[in-house]
Amino acid sequence: MRLTILLFDRFTALDVVGGYEVLARLPGVETSFAATECGVVAADTRRLGLIAYQRLADVKQTDILYVPGGPGVDAVMTDAEVLRCVAGLSEQAAWTVGICNGVCVLGAAGLLAGRRVTTSWDSRDRVAAFGAEVLTDRFVIDGDLLTSAGVSASVDGALALATELVGAPAAQLVQLGIEYYPAPPFGPSSVDAVPESSKEAVLRWRAEVEPKQLEMTTPWHTR
Amino acid sequence: MRLTILLFDRFTALDVVGGYEVLARLPGVETSFAATECGVVAADTRRLGLIAYQRLADVKQTDILYVPGGPGVDAVMTDAEVLRCVAGLSEQAAWTVGICNGVCVLGAAGLLAGRRVTTSWDSRDRVAAFGAEVLTDRFVIDGDLLTSAGVSASVDGALALATELVGAPAAQLVQLGIEYYPAPPFGPSSVDAVPESSKEAVLRWRAEVEPKQLEMTTPWHTR
Repeated sequence: MRLTILLFDRFTALDVVGGYEVLARLPGVETSFAATECGVVAADTRRLGLIAYQRLADVKQTDILYVPGGPGVDAVMTDAEVLRCVAGLSEQAAWTVGICNGVCVLGAAGLLAGRRVTTSWDSRDRVAAFGAEVLTDRFVIDGDLLTSAGVSASVDGALALATELVGAPAAQLVQLGIEYYPAPPFGPSSVDAVPESSKEAVLRWRAEVEPKQLEMTTPWHTR
Repeated sequence: MRLTILLFDRFTALDVVGGYEVLARLPGVETSFAATECGVVAADTRRLGLIAYQRLADVKQTDILYVPGGPGVDAVMTDAEVLRCVAGLSEQAAWTVGICNGVCVLGAAGLLAGRRVTTSWDSRDRVAAFGAEVLTDRFVIDGDLLTSAGVSASVDGALALATELVGAPAAQLVQLGIEYYPAPPFGPSSVDAVPESSKEAVLRWRAEVEPKQLEMTTPWHTR
C-alpha cells in the first residue's frame, strides 16, 4: 500500500510527521515524500528541511494521498499543475487525507463539494466556501476522505485512518509504539473553548511578527 | 536563544518534530539541526530524511540541547565523540532535553546520576541503570533537565519547557497555533494502563518484523 505525502515550500512539519509516524509504521505501507521537484523542501520556520524523493508529476498512483497544511498552502492553491496532480491521484486513491489548512488544497482541486470535513480552527470559513460541510471535530471520515483539524490533530486523524486500514487492535499497538497518551500541561480540552482574544493574538502574530522574524534571520541552509 | 536538535541515523521523526514544532516557534529561538556530518539524516523508517545543517562538532554553544530517541540510540551510546559533544554542550546549556529513549544518550554521556527523569515505557530499566530516578510521568523537569516519555510525549514536554521559557500565557498561544487539544480515537489514558501482552507484541514487532521490513524494501533515497 503506497502512501504519498505532498511536500511544498513552507509546509508545517508536525502536519506531516504526526500522520507519517502513525501511517508509515503500518504493515505493508510504503511511504514516499513527493514535491514539485526532488530535494530539500523547507518548512515554514525555514529551519527544518525534509527530503522529497519523488517528483509529484512522476507519481502515477497512490493508495493514500496525504496533503498537509502550512503557510505555503496559499501558493499551492494557485498552482494549477499541483492541483491537477492532486485531483488525479485522489480520484484513483483508496484514501485522500487533508490535514489542517491543507484541506483548502483539496478544495481548490475540486474535491470538497458536498463533503463533510474538518480543518484548522482558522480555516473553517475558507473550506466552507468550497461547498463542504465543515464540522468542528478533531477528525472526520466521509467515505474515502479523511480530514483533520490543525497540525497536531494529524496524529488523531491518522490513528482513525489506521483503524480503518488495519483494525483497532493493530492501530492501538501503533498508538503504544508512539506512546500516544497525551497529557498537555495546561489549556482547555477543545480549541472551541479558547477565548477569541487568544485566537486574534495568534493570527496577529502570524500576520505581523512571523514574516519579520523570517526576514531577519538567515536560514541555516543558505549559510 | 539557540536550540540545537541532535539528529542521528535511525532517529524517530516525531521525537524530533513534536518538540521542534513547539520550541522553534518561541520568540527569539534560533533552531538548528546538527549531526555528525551535514546533509540528509534518515529516520528509522528509512522513508523520511531530515537535513542537518550543522556538524555537531562545529556547535560551540547552545542554550537548549535537544536529544531525540529512536532505534539509532544504541549506536549513539557507543559513539565517544558524539557523547563528548553532548556532555560539553549540556554543561553550558541553560536546558538539556531528552525525549523517549534519547534519555539513554544523556545517561551514556554521564548526565543522569541522581537526576529525576522519565523516558519511554520500554527504556525505564535502562535509564535507571545510569543512576537516575525514573518516574512514569509524561514529562519531568529536574533543574535544567527536561525529559519526556516516548515519541509523541515530546509535544507535552516541549509545552512544559515553553512555559518555563516564555510563561504559560505565551505557551498557550503556541498550543493554539499547533491546535494541540488531543483526542485519540481510542485507547487508555496512560501507557501504564496498557496490557502487558500489547507491550510484548510491540517489542516483538520491533525485534523481529521491523528489521525484515527494512531489509525487504529499498529506501527511496537510494533508488
